[in-house]
Amino acid sequence: MTAKFRQKLAHRPRPEYFWLHSGTCQGRAGRYDRGMSQADILLPSPGSARPGKAPYLRIATEEAFAPKEMLEIYRRLIDKGEVDDPGFKGLMGFYMSSTSARAKHIIAGLQDLGDLRLKHMDDSGVDMQVIALTSPGVQFMETAEAVSFAQVANDQLADAIRRHPTRFAGMIAVAPQDPTAAAKEIERGVTKLGMHSVIINSHTKGEYLSDPKFWDIFAAAEQHNTPIYLHPNSLPKNMIQPFQEAGLDGAIYGFGVETGLHALRIITAGVFDRFPKLQMIIGHMGEALPFWLYRLDYMHRATVLSQRYESMKPVKKRVSEYLKENFYVTNSGVAWEPAIKFSQDVLGADRVLYAMDYPYQYEAAEVANLDNMDMSAELKKKFFQTNAERVFNIKPRP
Amino acid sequence: MTAKFRQKLAHRPRPEYFWLHSGTCQGRAGRYDRGMSQADILLPSPGSARPGKAPYLRIATEEAFAPKEMLEIYRRLIDKGEVDDPGFKGLMGFYMSSTSARAKHIIAGLQDLGDLRLKHMDDSGVDMQVIALTSPGVQFMETAEAVSFAQVANDQLADAIRRHPTRFAGMIAVAPQDPTAAAKEIERGVTKLGMHSVIINSHTKGEYLSDPKFWDIFAAAEQHNTPIYLHPNSLPKNMIQPFQEAGLDGAIYGFGVETGLHALRIITAGVFDRFPKLQMIIGHMGEALPFWLYRLDYMHRATVLSQRYESMKPVKKRVSEYLKENFYVTNSGVAWEPAIKFSQDVLGADRVLYAMDYPYQYEAAEVANLDNMDMSAELKKKFFQTNAERVFNIKPRP
Repeated sequence: MTAKFRQKLAHRPRPEYFWLHSGTCQGRAGRYDRGMSQADILLPSPGSARPGKAPYLRIATEEAFAPKEMLEIYRRLIDKGEVDDPGFKGLMGFYMSSTSARAKHIIAGLQDLGDLRLKHMDDSGVDMQVIALTSPGVQFMETAEAVSFAQVANDQLADAIRRHPTRFAGMIAVAPQDPTAAAKEIERGVTKLGMHSVIINSHTKGEYLSDPKFWDIFAAAEQHNTPIYLHPNSLPKNMIQPFQEAGLDGAIYGFGVETGLHALRIITAGVFDRFPKLQMIIGHMGEALPFWLYRLDYMHRATVLSQRYESMKPVKKRVSEYLKENFYVTNSGVAWEPAIKFSQDVLGADRVLYAMDYPYQYEAAEVANLDNMDMSAELKKKFFQTNAERVFNIKPRP
Repeated sequence: MTAKFRQKLAHRPRPEYFWLHSGTCQGRAGRYDRGMSQADILLPSPGSARPGKAPYLRIATEEAFAPKEMLEIYRRLIDKGEVDDPGFKGLMGFYMSSTSARAKHIIAGLQDLGDLRLKHMDDSGVDMQVIALTSPGVQFMETAEAVSFAQVANDQLADAIRRHPTRFAGMIAVAPQDPTAAAKEIERGVTKLGMHSVIINSHTKGEYLSDPKFWDIFAAAEQHNTPIYLHPNSLPKNMIQPFQEAGLDGAIYGFGVETGLHALRIITAGVFDRFPKLQMIIGHMGEALPFWLYRLDYMHRATVLSQRYESMKPVKKRVSEYLKENFYVTNSGVAWEPAIKFSQDVLGADRVLYAMDYPYQYEAAEVANLDNMDMSAELKKKFFQTNAERVFNIKPRP
C-alpha cells in the first residue's frame, strides 16, 4: 500500500470495505491491485459503520465456529494426505496456511465463542447469533472420530450458550457417516443441550442425504421438530474440476450450485412425502432456488413423465410447493434488497431469515444497508427477528 | 388413460398442459401417474389457448432446429460408441429413441423449417422466431465434420429465412473445435447469409471459451457486431455424475448451472477486457446469474484478493458490470413474471428478451400469461419486440 493511497483511504468518511462500496479505484491493471495488498481490505470495518438501534432484534442465523481441536484434525488429515478431496484441501488448506489478514481474521473468529465474537456482534449491531460448526464440520473424518468429535463440538457450543444465553443459540452438529448415531445426537442436542436445529454441510464424502440410508437423520429431526440447515461443503471430486480450474468452486458459485443440487436431490427423492413435517433451511438466498421455481416445476414434471431416469419417480407435490412448505432460506452472503424481497414474494415472508455468515462475511455496512431496505416494518421484523425466534425456538425477550 | 379421465380432460374449458396449470390430479402415488400416459400430456395445447393480437410483435429468440442429416450423424456417433460422454448419450439418445408423443413432437418440430413450424407459431401467437441449430450442434463431432456440417446447417437455415423473411431470423452455427474456421464462418454468416448472431452450445468436449485458444471466435464476433448466444449443452463428464444419478443433469437444473459456470469463466478470464464491445446472450432467465449478482461481486473480489487461484486474476470491472454491459438474457423456459421483472430491474429493461424454447417448451398458454404481465406497455414492447430487433439486427416492419 502506497503512502498516498493509505492517506486516501484514511480520509474516506466511512472506511468500509474498500472495493465493494466505493468502486472508484480502477487502474490500468484492474481495480484489485493498485497499491493494495490483501491485508488492507476485506477486513472488518471500524466502528464508524456501526448500525444504530433498530425496532427489532437482529438475529443472525448462519454464523460459524470451529473448535481449535477440529482445525488440528483438519491439519492432520491434510498433512498426512488422508483426504482424497481437492475441494477440502484447496479450501481448508488455504485458510489454515494463508498469512493474509483476512484468513487470520477468519481463523481467529471461528475459534472464539467469547469476547472477540461478542465485540464483533456489538460492532455490527447483531443482537444474537445462531452458531453452527463450520463447514465441513466432521463430515470428512473417519466415522468413529466424526461421531465423537460432533459431541465434543456440541458440548463446547452448549457451554458457550449457557454463558451467553441472550447472545448465542446453536445448531447440533452430527456425523451423517453414522445415521443412527446422528439421530441419537439430535436427541441429545435437543433434550440435554437445549439446541433446536441441526447443521449438515452438504455431501458427506460425495454421498447425498437423498439416499435412504441417511433417513434416520430426517426421522429424528422431524420427531424432535428440529430444522436441518443444509450448508455448503466444498465440491465433491466428481464435480469440482470445471469449477476449480477457473477458481469458481467456492463461495462465488460452486458452493451454491452444489448445495442447491443437494436440496433438489432431497426433494425429488421423496423425502418430504415420507417426512412431511420436516423443515430444512438453506442459506445464500436459498442458493438461487427461489429464482428457479418455475423451471423446476416445469422440467421436473417433464422429466418424471419421460421416465428417462430410474431415480426420478413421481412425488406428491410440485418442487416449488416443497420449497415453500418445507424450506426456509437465509440471506447469508447476499445483503441485497432485490433478492431478499424477491424471495419473500415467491416463498412467503415467513420463510426468509437474516444471516451474516460471520466470520466469513463480517460487514457492519451490510447490516446498515439492510436496516434501510424499503420494506414494511412488519416484514423487516419478521426478517430480522421473529422468523428466527420461531424457526430456532428462541424465547422472545420480555 | 382411463375413459373417465379422458372424459374429464375433454371437459376442461382450456385444455392446456394438464399438470402445470391445473394441479388437481393428485392420487395416492402422486400427481403424475393417475391414469395418464406420457403420450397425453406435455404436448402442445389446441387452439383454445391461442393468444390474441398484441400491440407488439412477439419475437421468440431461442428457438431450435436440427437438419435430419445432423440427427443421422448423432445416431452414428451413439451407435458406434464414438462419443465418450454420458450426458450426450443420455440426452440425444433418449430423444431419438423414445416413442413418447413428447419426443416425437420435439424431433418433428426440430426438423421442420416450413409449414409445421409456421402453424405452431401461428397457434401460439409468435410472429417471428430467431432460430438456432439445436444443442449440442456440431460440438461433439470430429473437427473436420463439425466445420463442414456447420456450413450445411447454416445454408439450410439461410434458405428457410429467404423463404420466410418476415417469420424467421437465424443464428450462425460454428465449430469451436477450429476457431479459425469458426471466425470465417461468422464472417460468411454475416456477409453472405444475412444472419446477425452466433450460437455456441456451452462447452466443446469439456473445453470452455475462457481458454484463449478460442478467442479468435470472440474477435470475429466483436468485429462483425454479432452477439453470441451461449446455450446449454449436456454436462461434461467431469461434472455430470452427482447430477445425472439423480436425474437432475438436464434442463431442470444441470444445464443452467453449467452454462452459468461457462459465462462466469468467460467473464473472470478477462474476455470482456480484451473484447469490450463483445455481446453475449444467455437464456433461461440468465441461467440465474441475475439473482447471484451481489454474491458474485463480493466473492470475486475476495477470491482475487486471496490470490488462491492462478486462474483468477484481476479484471477491470465487477462481475455484475460485465453482466449488465456485455450480456443479454432471455426468458426461455421461464415464463414467469417475477423472474422477468427481477431481471429487468437488476440488469435493465433493455437487456431482457422474450424466448419460447420451441419445440422443447411449446406452450401457447405461456405466451398468453406473459401478455398479461403487470408491466408497462413500453417495457412489454421492449421485452417482446424491440430489444430483439436491436440485438439481432431485425429490420422493423413498416
